[in-house]
Parts: sequence; structure tokens; C-alpha cells
Amino acid sequence: MTVFDRLFADSALSQLQEKDARDPLAHKRAEFILPDGVVYLDGNSLGALPRRVPARLAQVAEQEWGAGLIRSWTAGAGTGQGWMNLPDRVAAKLAPLVGAQPHELSVGDSTGVNIFKALAAALHLAPPERRVILTDADNFPTDLYVAQGLNALLDGRYEVRRVPGAELEGHLTDEVAVTLLTEVDYRTGRRMDLAGFTARAHAQGILTVWDLAHSAGAFPVDLNGADVDFALGCGYKYLNGGPGAPAFLFVAQRHHAAPVFLSGWMGHADPFEMARDFTPAPGARRYVVGTPMVLSLSALDAALDVFADVDMAELRAKSLSLTDAFIELMEPLAAQHPLTLVTPRAHAERGSQVSYQHPQARAVMDALIGRGILGDFRTPDILRFGFTPLYHSHADVWRAVQGIRAVLEERGA
Amino acid sequence: MTVFDRLFADSALSQLQEKDARDPLAHKRAEFILPDGVVYLDGNSLGALPRRVPARLAQVAEQEWGAGLIRSWTAGAGTGQGWMNLPDRVAAKLAPLVGAQPHELSVGDSTGVNIFKALAAALHLAPPERRVILTDADNFPTDLYVAQGLNALLDGRYEVRRVPGAELEGHLTDEVAVTLLTEVDYRTGRRMDLAGFTARAHAQGILTVWDLAHSAGAFPVDLNGADVDFALGCGYKYLNGGPGAPAFLFVAQRHHAAPVFLSGWMGHADPFEMARDFTPAPGARRYVVGTPMVLSLSALDAALDVFADVDMAELRAKSLSLTDAFIELMEPLAAQHPLTLVTPRAHAERGSQVSYQHPQARAVMDALIGRGILGDFRTPDILRFGFTPLYHSHADVWRAVQGIRAVLEERGA
Repeated sequence: MTVFDRLFADSALSQLQEKDARDPLAHKRAEFILPDGVVYLDGNSLGALPRRVPARLAQVAEQEWGAGLIRSWTAGAGTGQGWMNLPDRVAAKLAPLVGAQPHELSVGDSTGVNIFKALAAALHLAPPERRVILTDADNFPTDLYVAQGLNALLDGRYEVRRVPGAELEGHLTDEVAVTLLTEVDYRTGRRMDLAGFTARAHAQGILTVWDLAHSAGAFPVDLNGADVDFALGCGYKYLNGGPGAPAFLFVAQRHHAAPVFLSGWMGHADPFEMARDFTPAPGARRYVVGTPMVLSLSALDAALDVFADVDMAELRAKSLSLTDAFIELMEPLAAQHPLTLVTPRAHAERGSQVSYQHPQARAVMDALIGRGILGDFRTPDILRFGFTPLYHSHADVWRAVQGIRAVLEERGA
Repeated sequence: MTVFDRLFADSALSQLQEKDARDPLAHKRAEFILPDGVVYLDGNSLGALPRRVPARLAQVAEQEWGAGLIRSWTAGAGTGQGWMNLPDRVAAKLAPLVGAQPHELSVGDSTGVNIFKALAAALHLAPPERRVILTDADNFPTDLYVAQGLNALLDGRYEVRRVPGAELEGHLTDEVAVTLLTEVDYRTGRRMDLAGFTARAHAQGILTVWDLAHSAGAFPVDLNGADVDFALGCGYKYLNGGPGAPAFLFVAQRHHAAPVFLSGWMGHADPFEMARDFTPAPGARRYVVGTPMVLSLSALDAALDVFADVDMAELRAKSLSLTDAFIELMEPLAAQHPLTLVTPRAHAERGSQVSYQHPQARAVMDALIGRGILGDFRTPDILRFGFTPLYHSHADVWRAVQGIRAVLEERGA
């Protein structure tokens, strides 16, 4: 680093530190446990550990399971406590983060299983002559596989039409039954216009299923404001629920009468009636299938408490400030190295990550991880950096860019 | 209690204590944490807490998640470690308990979701002219609901034929595509003849899907010895994996080429290739859908270590000794009170539970639970008592019967 560079750098760093000094979310960092020497830019793959989670897990294991045993399913049921109600309690905490009513959310199972539930219901509601499931060719693999698998189960009666993201709008025709789209692209970080696209789909008589994997907890989502039909999302990214945390499913109230095609006793109106026929529980609870995975679900429940006092507008403002700062600091590197920004600069089109193409992306990311700058490589050539306003500072952005600079210079890449 | 009663009782108790003194599994009790003052006869609903689980959960949360972060997915991948391989490691521990090869097991999701996967695959493999799914009218609700839901998704092309258990054999006709049956009835504890029934089904060209919810971990199961096609089971009953623990799916090797209709990225041959089309992983791993729920799955993984040194034949012998002793001690009570034994006396037809009908079963069980005798009420009139040879002694059987006697006498019921 030249003297000039250092002067510039110091000036840039001090400006970032000023932003941190004014950060209304700065105190949230203390609610997470993060290892020393790491800049963790992978919260969009696995959120960091909320400090309150280990104690909750110990409580659930030792007290609720070990001492309470089977009684913990119904203990405190009169006040909505007990494991039986745990999916509903988590739904209530999640609802304000995604703009849903609590009874429009079902919590449990993986994202993939919830895509299956949503897509099956949406296809049933669509006019039978519409035979296209429209999706982005670069949608996350599970979304594509679930659509393929469900269609195969239905004897291939649908066409899973995979088109480039930029061409989706032109494919909103009266052939399309359902769109299955991810709001924020997991590679590029490009954010779609949830409300606008949903409105244009509805105008063509098309139902919408949205994957919020990179949205929920990353910025304010307003599912009902956007008139979304079905949505689902992940508990282990920006919601910090732990590895493989249970996912959630949103079913707009107007669709609650649709049949449930994947149903189990925990979605029954009265599970312990042990009835031979399925009578759905009220609301989206009917989409809970099996016995809730209490350990994983309790971790998610505790993790969501981190959001209780968070103003999601402030969170979004900080997220954009972090990603803006990152893009700005990366400019000189992008000018000197074969880095291509693939994340939109326009705020409205950006999630909470920034990605660059680089011809040696895999090796560069390996070297970064070796230095404690934890991001993601995504095929074929993407360097992905996730920013989580609850535990990142602008100074972290600075440290990350210094690490990236060092790696690129060392490698001559 | 009369003097004669007491003398008899003391004599019966000392005989039971002699059995305990010779019990080769007596040392396993120390591997579980159970509350004082409780006789826990509900391990067939929620297994007790293995002592090693809380430490494992703390390790996974604080070290693997908190410190390792995203690196824990692939850490030690070269030696089969890392979260990516966790479902396979659990499958390998489970395989000897159910008579499967490790690559015939997929671990994850709920029992209900696995019933769906198995039934969808089995129906695909069955000749298309066969249009009956044969099941027991008293099968567990989730089994019935999944069959109903899947059939509705397939436009009702099948008939879900629900017949009384005693009439199942007579319904093995060339109309039947698949049987969906639970080996041990959750209410009566009646155990079906897994190998014999499967052979008779196969003789009629029928595929079999077996629910092992009350079998796995309760006694030795030999799926390949019985030539079973598909099976699934529960992680939270006799396997002690914790509330809502992940379930497992068995797919016989000969069926591995069947299409997977509910597929996600974690069942892909190379998940991080992020390919647009689903290429299944080898073996039953292809049935893993979403990101494994690591916290819940790690608890199950630790719980299965309890079985590492257990001779399943010894476990079965002790289970029968416990249930025999219980039935014998209950004889005088059944003579004086309106108790009807609904569990078969024949060992071959018995699981690891004993159930009685009683006209006030719900109130009787509530009173028992109040006394620390934890069993289950099951509609409409069943008192259910589960016996788990890993942590029950014959003296526990004695204590349970004394409690039942006291409740029935107090209530005059």
C-alpha cells in the first residue's frame, strides 16, 4: 500500500467508522456469538449464532424433554404454551417480518417440502387449461427440482418453463398457471419487484409462489401488501435459526379453503382425536404435517427474539449502507482485477448481498476463507458476500475489502 | 392391602428383583436422565433423554455453528464428517437396528413426509391397472391422511381401502397396488408378521410400505430379511432422538432406480454443482430433500450411540419379560375392574407396549399421570403403557401396577 493509498484508506475508514457511530442497530451485535478473527459474510447461507440460543437448547433438552417428558407437548396449553403450539408461536413472531397474519403462516419442514406444498395447492387452484409452471432458469436448484418432481408425479401434465430472469415478464401469458420465483437471486443478489410482478401475474390470471430464502429477515417483506398467493422461506439464513432450521410457508387467507395434499396429524383440527379422515386445522396450521422438530424449532424461536425490537426500515437502511460501502470500496479493485459486479446498483433491485464474477472465483474464495473472510463461492464463477445488518459494522466492510485486496494482489488474480 | 395380598406382593416383587439382578441391559439405565418419582411408560410416544445428548447439542450449537459457522458443512468431509454427511452417518448407525444396508436409508423430514415419498414411489412402481392402496382402518392418522392427500393430488385415481386389521389378508388381491401398514398398532400394540405378510403381498404382485414407528429400536427389525420394499419410521419414540426427531426412510436397493418425486438439492449427486436438473445421489440419499435440520439430527445421532453395544435379541427378550410381567401383575386388577387386555399374549404378535380398554380410560390416565405413572390415553378408551428395555426394570413394572391399582381402587373404577 502506498502512502497515498494509506491516506485515502484512513480517510475512507474514518468515514465508515462515523457511520458506525450513528448506527441505531449497533447494539444488536452483542446478541450474537461470532469467532474472533473472522469477518462473516455468509449469513445468507447460515446466520450466526444468537447468544440466547445455547441456553434455550439446554432448557429444552434438560427441562422440557428430560424432566417434562411427554407432558411438555401440552404443558401450559391453555396459555398457548407447550410444544403443540410451538409452530404457531414461531409463526406469530415471524408474521410481522414478512407482512403476514400469524394464521397465514405454517412453520416446519424444509424449504423444499414447503415449495412442494405451495406449488401443489397453487396448481390445484389454477384453471386446469393452464399448463405452464413459469420459473427462472437460474432459480435455486431445489425450486427447480421440486417443480420437476411434482410435475413428474402428475404425469408431466405441466411444462416447467425455465426462462432467463430478464425474460420472465414477457412470459406472463394465459398459458401460465403459476409462477415459482425467488425474490432475491441467490447468485447475483438481484431483487425482483415482488408487488409489481405479482400484480402483473394476477392481471394475467396467474397465481404466484414466492421463495423468500434471501428476503425474510434481510429486509422488510410485505406479503399481503404485495397480494402474494403463496410464499415460503428459510429459517437458517437471515433469520439465524441454526443449520437446517425449519422453514415457513405463507398461504394467503383467501386460499385457506384449498385442499392440503401433504397432510399429517399435526395439521388436523384435533390431532388427539386420531380421526380416520383429515379435518384441517384453522388457517395455515393445516400445512404442518408431522410432529414438530422441537429442538430445531426452539432454536429458531429463540433466534427470532433478536428481531423483537428491530425496526425493519432501519435494518434495510443499514443493509443498503453496508452494501453501498462495499461496492464503493471494491471499485478500485474491480478496476485492477477481473471482477465484474453482478449485483444491481439500484437499491430497489438489491437484496442484502453483493456478488462479483471472477474467473478464478473458487480459488479466490478459498484464499479468503483461509484469511477469515467468510463468503461463498457459487458456480460457475461467483464470489458472494452477504451482509447482515444485525451483526455487521461498516468497519467489517472495510476489513473485508482489505482482505479481498490482499488476496487478489497475492495471487495476481 | 390384606396381609395375604402383601405376602403375595412381596413374593412377586422379589421374583421381579431377581430378574433385574440378572438383566444384561441393566447398566443402560445410567445412560438416560429421568426425573425422580416418575415411572415413564411413554417411551413409545417420546423416548427419554439420553445423557449424552445435552452435551452434544451444546457442542453443535457453540462449536460447530457458533465458531465453525458455514465451514461446518464441509469440515472433515474427506473423512465423512461435516454436516453434509450427517444424514448418512445417522443412516449407518440406524441400519443394523432395522436390517437395512446403510445406503438403503435416508434420514430426515418427518414420518409423514417420508410416507408420502415412499407411497408415491411405490405407486409408480406398481402396475398401473392396480388402483387400490390397502391400509388398516385403524392405522395411525398420518398414514391415512398422507394416503388420502396423495390420492387427491393424483385426482383420486386410487381407492384408499381401509379395512379392519383382521381382514387385511383377505384383501390381498390383484386390485391392490400397495399396502401401507404399521407393523405395530399404536393403540393395541398388536404386531403384524412383517416377513409373512410381505411374502403374501408379493405373491399377489403387491408392493409393501411399512411404518416402523413402534418397531425401530423396540425390537430387532430385519427389513431385508423380510424382503420389504419401502419402510419408514420415527426417530423420537424407541430411538430416543428427542421431540419431533427426524424420521427415516428405507428404500430397498432393487427400487433405487425409481423416480424421486419430492426432491431437493441435498439429494442431488453434487449439491454444490447447483445444476438445473436433478441427478440423484447414489442410493437412498436421493430422498433427502432440503438442508438437514442439524440440531435435531445431531440429537438423534447422539441418541443412537446408546444402541452401539446393545444386543437386540437381548433387548427383545427383556421387552417381552417386562410386558409379560406387567400382564401377569395386572391379571388380578383386570378381574376386579373393567379392564380388557387388547394386546396379544402371543409373543410373536406383541410389540413393546401393553394396552387395556377401560370405560373411563381418559380420567384414569389423568390420575395416573398425577401420580407419576406416565402412560398414554388413546381414543376412545385405551390405556397404553410402553416399555423400553434400555431404561426400565422389572421393579418399575411393579411400581407401575401398584400405582394403577391405587388409582382404580380410589376411583372405584
